[in-house]
Amino acid sequence: MKIPFINTTEIRVRYGETDQMGYCYYGNYAQYFEVGRVEALRSLGMSYKALEEQGVMLPVSEFSVKYLSPAFYDDLLTVKTEITAIKGARIYFTYELSNEKGNIISKAETTLVFVDKTTMRPTQAPANFSALFESI
Amino acid sequence: MKIPFINTTEIRVRYGETDQMGYCYYGNYAQYFEVGRVEALRSLGMSYKALEEQGVMLPVSEFSVKYLSPAFYDDLLTVKTEITAIKGARIYFTYELSNEKGNIISKAETTLVFVDKTTMRPTQAPANFSALFESI
Amino acid sequence: MKIPFINTTEIRVRYGETDQMGYCYYGNYAQYFEVGRVEALRSLGMSYKALEEQGVMLPVSEFSVKYLSPAFYDDLLTVKTEITAIKGARIYFTYELSNEKGNIISKAETTLVFVDKTTMRPTQAPANFSALFESI
Amino acid sequence: MKIPFINTTEIRVRYGETDQMGYCYYGNYAQYFEVGRVEALRSLGMSYKALEEQGVMLPVSEFSVKYLSPAFYDDLLTVKTEITAIKGARIYFTYELSNEKGNIISKAETTLVFVDKTTMRPTQAPANFSALFESI
Repeated sequence: MKIPFINTTEIRVRYGETDQMGYCYYGNYAQYFEVGRVEALRSLGMSYKALEEQGVMLPVSEFSVKYLSPAFYDDLLTVKTEITAIKGARIYFTYELSNEKGNIISKAETTLVFVDKTTMRPTQAPANFSALFESI
Repeated sequence: MKIPFINTTEIRVRYGETDQMGYCYYGNYAQYFEVGRVEALRSLGMSYKALEEQGVMLPVSEFSVKYLSPAFYDDLLTVKTEITAIKGARIYFTYELSNEKGNIISKAETTLVFVDKTTMRPTQAPANFSALFESI
Repeated sequence: MKIPFINTTEIRVRYGETDQMGYCYYGNYAQYFEVGRVEALRSLGMSYKALEEQGVMLPVSEFSVKYLSPAFYDDLLTVKTEITAIKGARIYFTYELSNEKGNIISKAETTLVFVDKTTMRPTQAPANFSALFESI
Repeated sequence: MKIPFINTTEIRVRYGETDQMGYCYYGNYAQYFEVGRVEALRSLGMSYKALEEQGVMLPVSEFSVKYLSPAFYDDLLTVKTEITAIKGARIYFTYELSNEKGNIISKAETTLVFVDKTTMRPTQAPANFSALFESI
């Protein structure tokens, strides 16, 4: 894969995701970015689900997010997800969240670690995963 | 156990659990009732966690809830949980949720099924679990 | 509207919606049914958001759900939502949730109440809302 | 207030907060830190709820978190919250999350902004709020 790789996907803010300020609660963005990276991987033919079935988990080790403007109920948001690097047992993503007016309302970064389910230790990405990234 | 068995526990409504009506979102009550039944079992010396470690899961098969009055942000709610029956592979709970004024704001019922993790089939409660219920 | 009115929409189970059993957590279905009814209303040209902006809220007063089979991570679920009745200040929905194999995995019902934001009392559906239901 | 001010509070991981890795989902920590700062303010006699009733909201503008070790179902976590600074319209918190073994499993930081509900613009902390911080 020619890093960076970029994918976009859409998410609509659910009523249950708002809080009494009328904003999308700050804690719910983590799910939006999760959807962003899952769909980015899916667009490359990779499945988060299959990865786990191969015995490799991918927990988040670092997450940072800036909330530039609120997201509101029923907003159709666009998540732009970029895979910025894969180094050893780590994979790095950045995200931009935009609303229907095209305004960027949030920027975020996550680091995830490939973890062997059996040993519970960091591990290299499975061969088919890293091969795919090299071949694209 | 002399059925019924009743336990009470307290839960404070978190900001992230409110919605833009300013109510605790209707979907979040399921977690409150989960806490209610876990604490009811804990008060009997039973652990939901240990149950799973013994190879038995306890998914919910039926859930019904009436929302009589809203719960608001920062309300300190009391969950009154009653274990009403254990029959075969099923255990039945009822719940009453009250606010600080002592008003009952919600009533609910759940049915849960003991499921063997290996076979994924309904199963009798583990011996130590059912023995405890008989001995109390 | 010729009651009943039926709409279908799709929802993919997010990783954060699973629990350690590997099932979609029972409390998360409430959001799926919320999405179902919002999209059912949208397909009729009605907006939940606009309803609130007109000063009318629509909280849930009753909710019951049967969990027939688990939903799993990354499952693409179909929510079939039916508006079964509108009587006075109440609107009734039923839901069927199916997985990609076409199996019905959950059935549910909700009752919602039109509430005036100013008086916080039950109220008739706004004129444009009820007119639409009569005209279709 | 002699900055820094430190408060600790306890939170038990709910079943619905786990994911299929068996970890507390990374997105749920935001709620734990919210509880941490609300309780830190409460210990100073300040109420987040009263603040909003005075017409001032306090949304999060930045959030970063490191996940050092997983939190598991039923873990009783300790959130150590520190108010590190108040500058203009901004208030800064840091957090340390520990498990029952006393291991620090997560560290985080948030920046929140006082926002006037009417103008929706950043604003100074209300007088009684800043006075309290000065007097302690």
